[in-house]
Amino acid sequence: MSQYSAPLSDFRFLLHEVFQASDLWQRLPALTELIDGDTADAILEEAGKVAASLIAPLNRSGDEEGAQWAQGTVTTPRGFKQAYATYIDGGWVGLAGNPAFGGMGMPKMLAVQVEEILYAANSSFALYSALSSGACLAIDAHGSEALKQLFLPPMYAGRWAGTMCLTEAHAGTDLGLIRTRAEPTVDDRYRISGSKIFITGGEQDLTENIVHLVLARLPDAPKGSRGISLFLVPKWQVEADGSLGQRNTVTCGSIEHKMGIKASATCVMNFDGATGFLLGEANKGLAAMFTMMNYERLSIGIQGIGCAETSYQNARAYARDRLQGRAPTGAQAPMQVADPILVHPDVRRMLLTMKALNEGGRAFSCYVGQLLDLGKYSIQPGEQQRAQALAALLTPVCKAFFTDTGLESCIHGQQVFGGHGYIREWGQEQLVRDVRIAQIYEGTNGVQALDLLGRKVVGDGGAMLATFCGEVLEFVQHSDSTYCVQITQEVRRLQRVSALLLDRASNDPTQIGAASVEYLHLFGYVAYAYMWARMMSVAEQRMAEDVDFYSAKLATGQFFFSRLLPRTLSLEATILAGAEPLYGLLDTQF
Amino acid sequence: MSQYSAPLSDFRFLLHEVFQASDLWQRLPALTELIDGDTADAILEEAGKVAASLIAPLNRSGDEEGAQWAQGTVTTPRGFKQAYATYIDGGWVGLAGNPAFGGMGMPKMLAVQVEEILYAANSSFALYSALSSGACLAIDAHGSEALKQLFLPPMYAGRWAGTMCLTEAHAGTDLGLIRTRAEPTVDDRYRISGSKIFITGGEQDLTENIVHLVLARLPDAPKGSRGISLFLVPKWQVEADGSLGQRNTVTCGSIEHKMGIKASATCVMNFDGATGFLLGEANKGLAAMFTMMNYERLSIGIQGIGCAETSYQNARAYARDRLQGRAPTGAQAPMQVADPILVHPDVRRMLLTMKALNEGGRAFSCYVGQLLDLGKYSIQPGEQQRAQALAALLTPVCKAFFTDTGLESCIHGQQVFGGHGYIREWGQEQLVRDVRIAQIYEGTNGVQALDLLGRKVVGDGGAMLATFCGEVLEFVQHSDSTYCVQITQEVRRLQRVSALLLDRASNDPTQIGAASVEYLHLFGYVAYAYMWARMMSVAEQRMAEDVDFYSAKLATGQFFFSRLLPRTLSLEATILAGAEPLYGLLDTQF
Repeated sequence: MSQYSAPLSDFRFLLHEVFQASDLWQRLPALTELIDGDTADAILEEAGKVAASLIAPLNRSGDEEGAQWAQGTVTTPRGFKQAYATYIDGGWVGLAGNPAFGGMGMPKMLAVQVEEILYAANSSFALYSALSSGACLAIDAHGSEALKQLFLPPMYAGRWAGTMCLTEAHAGTDLGLIRTRAEPTVDDRYRISGSKIFITGGEQDLTENIVHLVLARLPDAPKGSRGISLFLVPKWQVEADGSLGQRNTVTCGSIEHKMGIKASATCVMNFDGATGFLLGEANKGLAAMFTMMNYERLSIGIQGIGCAETSYQNARAYARDRLQGRAPTGAQAPMQVADPILVHPDVRRMLLTMKALNEGGRAFSCYVGQLLDLGKYSIQPGEQQRAQALAALLTPVCKAFFTDTGLESCIHGQQVFGGHGYIREWGQEQLVRDVRIAQIYEGTNGVQALDLLGRKVVGDGGAMLATFCGEVLEFVQHSDSTYCVQITQEVRRLQRVSALLLDRASNDPTQIGAASVEYLHLFGYVAYAYMWARMMSVAEQRMAEDVDFYSAKLATGQFFFSRLLPRTLSLEATILAGAEPLYGLLDTQF
Repeated sequence: MSQYSAPLSDFRFLLHEVFQASDLWQRLPALTELIDGDTADAILEEAGKVAASLIAPLNRSGDEEGAQWAQGTVTTPRGFKQAYATYIDGGWVGLAGNPAFGGMGMPKMLAVQVEEILYAANSSFALYSALSSGACLAIDAHGSEALKQLFLPPMYAGRWAGTMCLTEAHAGTDLGLIRTRAEPTVDDRYRISGSKIFITGGEQDLTENIVHLVLARLPDAPKGSRGISLFLVPKWQVEADGSLGQRNTVTCGSIEHKMGIKASATCVMNFDGATGFLLGEANKGLAAMFTMMNYERLSIGIQGIGCAETSYQNARAYARDRLQGRAPTGAQAPMQVADPILVHPDVRRMLLTMKALNEGGRAFSCYVGQLLDLGKYSIQPGEQQRAQALAALLTPVCKAFFTDTGLESCIHGQQVFGGHGYIREWGQEQLVRDVRIAQIYEGTNGVQALDLLGRKVVGDGGAMLATFCGEVLEFVQHSDSTYCVQITQEVRRLQRVSALLLDRASNDPTQIGAASVEYLHLFGYVAYAYMWARMMSVAEQRMAEDVDFYSAKLATGQFFFSRLLPRTLSLEATILAGAEPLYGLLDTQF
């Protein structure tokens, strides 16, 4: 029943008007030749078509059918194989990949929008290529030239897929506990043995080969997280000419039965002396993994926006069609038996909440994508360093806030449907189930919050936070928006709370974890306020060009400022309560 | 994996210590002979045993298998039929039923606790008897003596089940639109024709007969909700001696495929000139349905608490077992590879949020159950009327706030499990799916909020609200709790916001629906604060008797006051923003 249409006008608004991407791309030598505004528009339009015609139609059937496992092989739902073949023909897997090895070299700022389209159309399908992109990033950053030459071209082409093998049954958040072993052999190869769980796309029937990136311990490695190395372990061995050789001793023991993303195979992977190659330095595997985490976590966060956008589009259509009751001010459709439910204030509240959060998140993903591009391609050392540090600060906010608000939105979108929202046929309940994983995987949102407050804010004494707040306040200074007072107030709140937590954390290490989730949310609302102010500022200037589009943008922003941003009041009060209330109970008293 | 154990000590604490049920039961003649404290304890203990040993073990398998439909018959999952037979042998269906027709006549205050146990053990299973209880209430209130004699005894015995047939495909919240017809025949019977959807237990294989309560229109009935009558339509006709006669022309056309409560059959019911009996007066069917709604909606609300309690118990066990990372203050279990995750402040935050919301809700369900008992059984006219009106005010708060916080809790309980929370095997994701329906059915939570603010607060000019606030302030006056200042402040906030909304609503009818959901939440937090103050007051007095139990109660209450109650700040600010931000967009601009 779901009918997804990519929000192309919103993408163009962000790229060209809010963030003036073309100007940026002009001054980054790595991008100048590759991309301009028209190309970006064409790419997004094409992505929207592929998503709507090829991928979205497989979302419901994929959920009903699920990925199937039998004797070590995984079968994706009907239609996935054909759709994937068509999809990779478009070159989408290598969209942001390194052109030196066959990637298209597109900026992250554009890639985030394509990612949103994919997740919106079909999260399970999107994951098969999302994990490949992540694996390519790690190989590109840490692999030898030989490994890159051998593995990246077929991976960017989508003929081979990548996975990330981190978690073990007893080691999730605490990767220091992993037990998978890697033993050197006579040549530069290693024999990998151990069992990994929750491996997205660990086995599937879409690609000719699967390239596993595996965290394992070398003999005599230090204990804990400083003794972990990263290995590349292909499903099929690869000959020097790139052809497939022997089957490696890595097998899929089973797949999980999950709440959602059922068409995505979540695998138990058993490595039984499998041949692998070291990526990066020995014992520095975690660091190697984390160099690409800012890219990956942003992408996974965008799943939250994608699912929420589809839920919004469905709920909007339903609210226009479904006739129940009359508007509080009297019949709006007197010739019909009842008014469309869009007339009811509470239905509008739910839809506007979704719209304001989605558009705020979309803008912020674009903003952080831009920072990642600057961090990667800027030739001004100061700018590059600043962008990298700022992206590092903001990435956990993206991952957790996009997905927490994504769940909230999908629940509103389900609620708009009333009883029909609970029925599988309509698709709204699937979006709730599918988006829920994004709060959990790629580091739970609780872990993201600890990363933000502990490592990124307290860790540098609040320096990068000050940079971010400074940027927002500077924008406000040069703006005559009616929301300047409110934004300034919210930035001051964030600064005040941050200063308090820096102080508290210096005496009591429990204070970070006690405040971190609320702190991340407070940060998220301030970030969205900044985005809304930037969007509204453009909308005000351009109003005459397209009253319908820009007045909607203004009204949605006004809704955000008046009805969503006040959530910071409670967040601050809760943070102030500190860690003490969390330790009033003995462990046995829970 | 789930291991549910009924929170008997908490039930006893509420019944005997906080609400002093025995004193009340002593002075209500209808209850004096039927129930005392020991009997109540024995009933709850037995309910806990039945739930843990008989019903909870079918929860996961029931979800996996689901109810099955084939050619008009519905098969419940394996084990349900046997368990139901054992369950009804205990007389549980008639627990709060009218003793004149074979019910046990137990107070609602006790029944709510048994209901919580049932929902906690297995929401799908619980629904089969919950709907019967609701149907019995309606028959008892509106049926002729002959109908009551014929139908109530086998229904209280659980041999026959009841359903509520309200919704039609085009008429959910707006029941005025229903089209099902009822034509009088030569005797006192009617022929019912039409199709109903979302009928819980409309068909099943557990009982000998099914008694449908059906909303339909008589010929020449007025349009809209004033032209709806209520009919009793049995699956099997019933002879004068109570034996089953001919099969009635009501059939189950299909069942829905849903997000959760999969073992509960949600049926499309087709009435094809089926024989029925009028219940209550013609054209007053909606009113007849609503006389029992306070009872039913409270029960459905309790599904929220039940699911959340099970999720809490599972999450607590997992947090004690799962070893990941170290406490921020250093290793707490240095002999193990890592500490149990219960040491982490954020895990404690999630568990305490669940615990504080569950225990607050449990107390409030008990409090409102007591009001319903007073409203039904009090022989002091003033007291009876006050209790009825107060219960009417508070019922939508129970239904919506128990289930909204129930979802929040189940999501926390899933998050505590990390990746394992997303896997079906562990049961935590099922609780999220199962509890979600309780925000939708029996009147969506948005509709509950409109009922609260529109009908119950604005509708009587704030009179009953004043009564409730007065009771809380009076309690505070006689208490020396450290939280008196905070509660008084919160009651003042509720009064202030209510006065503002009464004023706004007099000029602009959209203001009610614009504020209603946040208003209901604000009300809910104030109500829970009142409950926590009452519980903490008892805990302080009795501390010496059981330090472990009472100090946990105090610490949980302190958590509620310091970290959850501040949510009212944002709710108030959002309400103040009013309806205007909801109407900034044209309908076409969404």
